[in-house]
Amino acid sequence: MSDLRRDIFTGRWVIVAQSDALAPSQFRFKRFAGEVTFCPFCETNEASTPPEVFAVRREGLAANGPGWSVRVVPNSMPRLRIEGALDRRGEGFHDVMNGVGAHEIVAETPRHDRRLQDLEPAEIATVFRAYHARIADLRRDNRVRYVLVFKNHGEEAGANTIFHSISQLMALPVTPRAIKNKLEVARHYYAVKERCVYCDVVGQELRDMRRLVAENSDFVAFAPFASRFPFEIMILPKAHSCDFLQTSPAALDNLARIVRHVLERLDQTLGGPPYNIALQDGPCRRRKEGYWATLEHDFHWHLEILPQIFRVAGFEWASGFYYNPAPPEMAARCLAASMQA
Amino acid sequence: MSDLRRDIFTGRWVIVAQSDALAPSQFRFKRFAGEVTFCPFCETNEASTPPEVFAVRREGLAANGPGWSVRVVPNSMPRLRIEGALDRRGEGFHDVMNGVGAHEIVAETPRHDRRLQDLEPAEIATVFRAYHARIADLRRDNRVRYVLVFKNHGEEAGANTIFHSISQLMALPVTPRAIKNKLEVARHYYAVKERCVYCDVVGQELRDMRRLVAENSDFVAFAPFASRFPFEIMILPKAHSCDFLQTSPAALDNLARIVRHVLERLDQTLGGPPYNIALQDGPCRRRKEGYWATLEHDFHWHLEILPQIFRVAGFEWASGFYYNPAPPEMAARCLAASMQA
Repeated sequence: MSDLRRDIFTGRWVIVAQSDALAPSQFRFKRFAGEVTFCPFCETNEASTPPEVFAVRREGLAANGPGWSVRVVPNSMPRLRIEGALDRRGEGFHDVMNGVGAHEIVAETPRHDRRLQDLEPAEIATVFRAYHARIADLRRDNRVRYVLVFKNHGEEAGANTIFHSISQLMALPVTPRAIKNKLEVARHYYAVKERCVYCDVVGQELRDMRRLVAENSDFVAFAPFASRFPFEIMILPKAHSCDFLQTSPAALDNLARIVRHVLERLDQTLGGPPYNIALQDGPCRRRKEGYWATLEHDFHWHLEILPQIFRVAGFEWASGFYYNPAPPEMAARCLAASMQA
Repeated sequence: MSDLRRDIFTGRWVIVAQSDALAPSQFRFKRFAGEVTFCPFCETNEASTPPEVFAVRREGLAANGPGWSVRVVPNSMPRLRIEGALDRRGEGFHDVMNGVGAHEIVAETPRHDRRLQDLEPAEIATVFRAYHARIADLRRDNRVRYVLVFKNHGEEAGANTIFHSISQLMALPVTPRAIKNKLEVARHYYAVKERCVYCDVVGQELRDMRRLVAENSDFVAFAPFASRFPFEIMILPKAHSCDFLQTSPAALDNLARIVRHVLERLDQTLGGPPYNIALQDGPCRRRKEGYWATLEHDFHWHLEILPQIFRVAGFEWASGFYYNPAPPEMAARCLAASMQA
């Protein structure tokens, strides 16, 4: 069991592992240099993961065996565990609760040699359908306030050293800071204007076009005005929606198409950069006050694609500011120019 | 000139370079593999930097020549420039201002082969005196809201590829988010309890001792309860002070001693990890309302030492949460155990 600890100075929550999670010697600084000889996420190695919680598999085949295209399993080294009570408590001045939640791995493909951007749009859509199924299931747990979905691609973006193409789901017992902050800003904007700030910006980017990267009938991709990272991309549904689960199967197909398109452009332009993907979805809507009261009107779910080309360093840690050497207008121009299909 | 752009969704400010700062090809992903053949920060190469703005040099020697122990120069590729007006304006829905400010490099030693932790305490104290002198000078500029001091050590912590031991100062036209957030939390705590939250935590850590790493008559170093990073260390003055400039010369000597002590312990325990140092000082106090009104009572300056052993990845970017596999109690135990003087 890990602890969830609240930083008293900033309000930031931190998942702190128990002291036996890693030996002190494992913190010694070293670069990864090993070879991967066995991958638990490859087809036919299903027995080496915990039993699956979801899979898309050819009909008539048994669970936890081969024949799947997407497979979701609990993380065998979870940062949060499903067992136990939250037990919110004080420790001196500090706030702490048990590390209750869930941590799951979505194997996006049975093959070790394919990245997300190498999959067909229909296969990527199946990955998104797996997100749908798991989010819906995890939200049923009353202790869960938020289901976070993210992906680390490449060692520099924090990917594990197994290098199978996966994404991760975490069911969290508190709404994350980054989401709370966005909910507050969106709520404030809506209170003043009775419009969604995301809808307003989507409209402006579509008219302005300087930061536009791609669009289809359901989605738009652009380089955000205040991009933190070089070649950062934001993908939003054109129609207002605060909830990723409300996306129709046809729209998920279009989401798969635009995500693949953007990842291909990034590959062509930047030579296969490491990247993170973050789904920024609304929280579980169980409570009727606060953020949740007007959520349907004012929040608008979106995906962030964050290439990790330069390192975040002392400046960012000290200030919460970012320095971005690539203006988003230039990034959008480059991504459009490399778009030779 | 760069732009300062405000992210409409989070309130986060980003310094965005102009489009001619780097060519698109320079964003292609690559690892650094070159050799350093020339270093502008080494003694006798003074002519290859912009003219110095501060130096501690043997008496009778001319500026911008050898014989110095600490030397501060404007960054030759600054993220912010001192020239021009702020010109706050709207761009569609977005907030933007010119990238006005200052960006300076503190060469901590004339020798290329010495790191901060290799310097004598008296030499480290001279580095802190250089911070003092430059902060005092930069605060005189009415456009400056905050002077940020930070250090990147090691490539993994974002250090430049010249590898001379330097720290950086940035004079910013807005108070950074991370500082604003801390000021707000401290103000709120003070409003309820009429005590400084930092003073309260220092007292508790000194009594509790489980997270204590080092102390002397003026300073205490401990692993914070909700450490974001493995082996993160916070160093605070024992006496309440909201302003780093109020630190006496004798206390700066003690600060140098405790910083060197902690860096040595980290080296012994973690095998020379990359790290960031962030000075978390109060803002320029020109205005009498808001954060600034009660600042003297409620904020307490401190240093953060942030070893960069594991990468921040999709989880952190998506949530603003952190995952720390090293409980601070274990980190403090290890740092004490390696303390074989």
